[in-house]
Amino acid sequence: MFFSSDNAGPAAPEVLAALAEANEGYAPPYGADDLMTEVRDRLRQIFEAPEAAVYLVGTGTAANSLALACLNPPWATIYCHSHAHVEADECAAPEFFTGGAKLTLIDGPDGKLLPDPLHARLAATMEGFVHSVQRGTITISNLTESGAAYTPAEVAALGAVAREFGVALHMDGARFANAIVGTNASPADMTWRAGVDALSFGGTKNGLMGVEAVLLFDPAKAWEFELRRKRAAHLFSKHRYLSAQMAAYLRDDLWKRLAGQANAAARRLAEGIEAIEGAHLLHPVGGNQVFAAWPRGGHRRAQEAGAYYYLWPMTETMEGPDEEPVSARLVCNWATEAAAVERFLELIRE
Amino acid sequence: MFFSSDNAGPAAPEVLAALAEANEGYAPPYGADDLMTEVRDRLRQIFEAPEAAVYLVGTGTAANSLALACLNPPWATIYCHSHAHVEADECAAPEFFTGGAKLTLIDGPDGKLLPDPLHARLAATMEGFVHSVQRGTITISNLTESGAAYTPAEVAALGAVAREFGVALHMDGARFANAIVGTNASPADMTWRAGVDALSFGGTKNGLMGVEAVLLFDPAKAWEFELRRKRAAHLFSKHRYLSAQMAAYLRDDLWKRLAGQANAAARRLAEGIEAIEGAHLLHPVGGNQVFAAWPRGGHRRAQEAGAYYYLWPMTETMEGPDEEPVSARLVCNWATEAAAVERFLELIRE
Amino acid sequence: MFFSSDNAGPAAPEVLAALAEANEGYAPPYGADDLMTEVRDRLRQIFEAPEAAVYLVGTGTAANSLALACLNPPWATIYCHSHAHVEADECAAPEFFTGGAKLTLIDGPDGKLLPDPLHARLAATMEGFVHSVQRGTITISNLTESGAAYTPAEVAALGAVAREFGVALHMDGARFANAIVGTNASPADMTWRAGVDALSFGGTKNGLMGVEAVLLFDPAKAWEFELRRKRAAHLFSKHRYLSAQMAAYLRDDLWKRLAGQANAAARRLAEGIEAIEGAHLLHPVGGNQVFAAWPRGGHRRAQEAGAYYYLWPMTETMEGPDEEPVSARLVCNWATEAAAVERFLELIRE
Amino acid sequence: MFFSSDNAGPAAPEVLAALAEANEGYAPPYGADDLMTEVRDRLRQIFEAPEAAVYLVGTGTAANSLALACLNPPWATIYCHSHAHVEADECAAPEFFTGGAKLTLIDGPDGKLLPDPLHARLAATMEGFVHSVQRGTITISNLTESGAAYTPAEVAALGAVAREFGVALHMDGARFANAIVGTNASPADMTWRAGVDALSFGGTKNGLMGVEAVLLFDPAKAWEFELRRKRAAHLFSKHRYLSAQMAAYLRDDLWKRLAGQANAAARRLAEGIEAIEGAHLLHPVGGNQVFAAWPRGGHRRAQEAGAYYYLWPMTETMEGPDEEPVSARLVCNWATEAAAVERFLELIRE
Repeated sequence: MFFSSDNAGPAAPEVLAALAEANEGYAPPYGADDLMTEVRDRLRQIFEAPEAAVYLVGTGTAANSLALACLNPPWATIYCHSHAHVEADECAAPEFFTGGAKLTLIDGPDGKLLPDPLHARLAATMEGFVHSVQRGTITISNLTESGAAYTPAEVAALGAVAREFGVALHMDGARFANAIVGTNASPADMTWRAGVDALSFGGTKNGLMGVEAVLLFDPAKAWEFELRRKRAAHLFSKHRYLSAQMAAYLRDDLWKRLAGQANAAARRLAEGIEAIEGAHLLHPVGGNQVFAAWPRGGHRRAQEAGAYYYLWPMTETMEGPDEEPVSARLVCNWATEAAAVERFLELIRE
Repeated sequence: MFFSSDNAGPAAPEVLAALAEANEGYAPPYGADDLMTEVRDRLRQIFEAPEAAVYLVGTGTAANSLALACLNPPWATIYCHSHAHVEADECAAPEFFTGGAKLTLIDGPDGKLLPDPLHARLAATMEGFVHSVQRGTITISNLTESGAAYTPAEVAALGAVAREFGVALHMDGARFANAIVGTNASPADMTWRAGVDALSFGGTKNGLMGVEAVLLFDPAKAWEFELRRKRAAHLFSKHRYLSAQMAAYLRDDLWKRLAGQANAAARRLAEGIEAIEGAHLLHPVGGNQVFAAWPRGGHRRAQEAGAYYYLWPMTETMEGPDEEPVSARLVCNWATEAAAVERFLELIRE
Repeated sequence: MFFSSDNAGPAAPEVLAALAEANEGYAPPYGADDLMTEVRDRLRQIFEAPEAAVYLVGTGTAANSLALACLNPPWATIYCHSHAHVEADECAAPEFFTGGAKLTLIDGPDGKLLPDPLHARLAATMEGFVHSVQRGTITISNLTESGAAYTPAEVAALGAVAREFGVALHMDGARFANAIVGTNASPADMTWRAGVDALSFGGTKNGLMGVEAVLLFDPAKAWEFELRRKRAAHLFSKHRYLSAQMAAYLRDDLWKRLAGQANAAARRLAEGIEAIEGAHLLHPVGGNQVFAAWPRGGHRRAQEAGAYYYLWPMTETMEGPDEEPVSARLVCNWATEAAAVERFLELIRE
Repeated sequence: MFFSSDNAGPAAPEVLAALAEANEGYAPPYGADDLMTEVRDRLRQIFEAPEAAVYLVGTGTAANSLALACLNPPWATIYCHSHAHVEADECAAPEFFTGGAKLTLIDGPDGKLLPDPLHARLAATMEGFVHSVQRGTITISNLTESGAAYTPAEVAALGAVAREFGVALHMDGARFANAIVGTNASPADMTWRAGVDALSFGGTKNGLMGVEAVLLFDPAKAWEFELRRKRAAHLFSKHRYLSAQMAAYLRDDLWKRLAGQANAAARRLAEGIEAIEGAHLLHPVGGNQVFAAWPRGGHRRAQEAGAYYYLWPMTETMEGPDEEPVSARLVCNWATEAAAVERFLELIRE
């Protein structure tokens, strides 16, 4: 019963097979491998974006930070949700990669930015006033850090704000596959058609070992991205092993199948929890993450039985009466077993 | 006949097997996996350094840059060979990671720094003069970028200079295994006993897919390293897949066996070339790299037969008379086949 | 009637005289001038801090940024008030100078940080959690950006929080003289005795042309400060002209006399406004700044008569009914004339 | 007898008078003062560059670093002379301001870059090769650090190289006035007509207290410059005191008159030294600096009589036989008195 994070789970067998297959003989290094050509072509096809620049890196933080550094000069501020990964979980990586840009934090329900408060913050930024940071890039996470999924229409509403103010829109898609499966939206509708300029397209949390793609829908910054990636030490010499993982991920829509498995497990968890007396969901379940509260007694039984997950926020505590609801985060991944879900639900429902 | 680079070759089968084995079930992310404990213990044992801090990253540039950023404040200059990888092949990554430190370039035979010119440059640096950058870290590559191996005594002579001036000594060991096998030195003698404070311990060029270790022999900067690694986006969530590769590399001295195979192939190449009329080695062959010149006609035949390698320096040209010697770099790896070496030698010897 | 800012006013005649006097013959550059010795000695005496490191720079942003860069590594967050100058008015200079640190914003009345919310934010910072920025420097402004003055006891309460968490405390004293005069506190009580580690000691807003001092009460970082100042281009070659201004400022407590004049003008303004029907102060007047609201009709008359000042916040508007109160900021300086104050009060009171 | 540096001398009386005059009443801060308008207009007129963006800063290092940061991305290398101020005397300020660009050092006689070696280095830079830094800005000093003056034709030859490779050309004109007077060239011919994109126009070494102008002949980067200046803390609030100095400097060609006085003193020094047996000039005297060698006995007598100047390079020593020539740098300024020059010559000639 492992619900602590989707990055604690294993890689898909197709990925291991692809690595083995890619391991024959010699291959040009640094992204000149044939598999990268396949990856690029396939991602352009999936996103209906034949001009998009496509790159691979090893971590989600690298994908986000390099994209933001290309889009946002150091004197402009990045607009993000107060709980965004770029703000809370990257130890100021965006500040490092951009050369000292600021992040402006905006609250919103379920980890989402809403158009009106975003518009207000952009309007309040004193563009043209040299003492203030200038308007910069908007970045959103889909899935959000609260497990919700933006719809294309919701993204488009933010994209309209970006266009109105002439700034870029970046999407942290560490769980993009889960969002696509959860909303049944097309990748193009969810991104560039909605005004997204750059996407961090996650793989690691959804069955890869450690590969993320970056898509720049406008390739004007492609060469800058390559130079920034190199000098940030994120250009892999034996690049074929990144390409192989991503190629396997894209073939036959494996990425969607894996996300579908994770989402289904999360949905079952959510349904099971909602049926428990004294329990409730904290956010809508847009993909593979469930944020919910249920009585402390249920937590106690689950933890004693060896379930792994985080109380959430981390200020929650196991000290207190059994009947009091305690909040937690449960994350499923492609390998989450139905039996584990059922066993967990049994434990927390008593 | 692939002699272009050791990063174009495949990973060792033991590494793939280790990845498959590591792929079972759940593992704590971000370096808390059990395999990392094995790696740390084993490297401390190999280096006879029970206190050393040990970390894994995905690229050699990350290993070098993070180590240098911990050792070198932005107002100090890094001393390196004019051809060092940190100067020539990292697109100013050390400058980025340190926040704008300078590199001071020093020439030396076979890619080596020699104690006297190094001493002179440190003495000439105007320590205490606020207008000048201050004395900073010395970094050397072993193997050097010209394929030579430092002996422990040679390193110790540089370590003595570092101690005299109170600065740190870093070793870029992207091909450390080749140097150890080539010199038959102990890892401890080659590093901390000779005054090395931090080592980039390469794996990628010697049979891994993309893993390098960093050893800080004095662990005082360990936590700073972790924070710098995180904010530079080099902390992998599914860290077990880095650990698994490195663990396999260290088990049963696989790292030495692989380097031994690469070195043997290079030695055979070097011997064969030396026996050719009009050919000569440009540098001593300390490991798996051969820098040599032979008549252009031999190059022509090799290239027509499909051999891959770089003329070196890149200003060399295939235009000119057949008998004129032309310089090149040949790099072997663990998988270089004896037959390919013999075939190549036949071609260039006519 | 100029109440727009204290940096729009002239320099004191004593300062000009000192410049003229300093302009004789030759003087060692870069801070080795005799006048700098006088400045250093005098500031150490004023602050009862014989070990303090003392430096001069040309702008308040330089003073703040250099001090913060010495105290705060890039992976730690700086705690400040949401309206702090370092956050709102320096175009991300702290982010630039620190190499990409984050600022954590905390609200509080009258521009002040209060111990409890500050404690809560430090407690909530996930020290030791590598994904999060770490606990860093607390910086407060005295006077605050809302014109209030911290008392030594209030500062000491924040200093206690800093000590509890082992972080540094910096004071932006762009209007330190006004705060000292306003509270009648001793400089030592207001700073190091209350736990302040570094002070930006302002001069420009209080009668100098462009000189600020930085005091590091613990001189351990003195040399680092000098190197950072140099590489940030803030070390002046003809340093005597900075020294001369600051020396004049400190002689015979000119700094207090000038601040006293500015504070008295502000007090008179505040008293006059409070007596107006429909008017009120927005913050206590701790020094030379008055934040107040009064009926729009009064603004109209003042502006038509040529008064200079800012509506505050800048979202306030002159469009609307005359009787509606509109907020503004009025800043006095040493040269503000009593007659201008009285004339202004007449205008706004009708 | 002060020949140590032109930044040890006093400011011109016209400058002090201008400060006093500017000190009346209120003035808009941050460069919106009327005097700045005069400065901008006058510099555009002097340079026949009606579109040029014009800014003031307090130090030469700020002028250089801000200009370079606007022209040179962090992944491009700056080409400069091995002895350039930006390399040797700014504690890696260009590296700091650019976010970690590299400097490529090129030798040349008398501190000058020559077109052929410059062309060769640009040609050798591996543009388009992601592992290498890319081609960046060329920066030259006029006067050079060896006291020579570039002619417009010499600059134009370098400008042609810049254009051929599509990179920018910056001129560090800390002693631009001396070069203009020394060559009798027009400012336009010396700069933009010769291909210079940005100029640091020095004032401090030539009679100001601490003001330098930056001219961007193409104003496309003007707003970026303003933002970089602000976040580097080089935007002065009481800007009128910078403007006043520069305005006085430009009125009635004071800048040329002051430089003329300094150059004349240097010429007399040079002529006097050349007439001494065993003495010789090390570089042509293009302006106000004399680099020369004469017998140690002469140095001894001068130093005993209280003359201030530097042996040059600093490795020169006063230990040794009297007749041996020892090198030195002598710098004159606008206030250097003819009597001091004659007295000095007497001393060193015996």
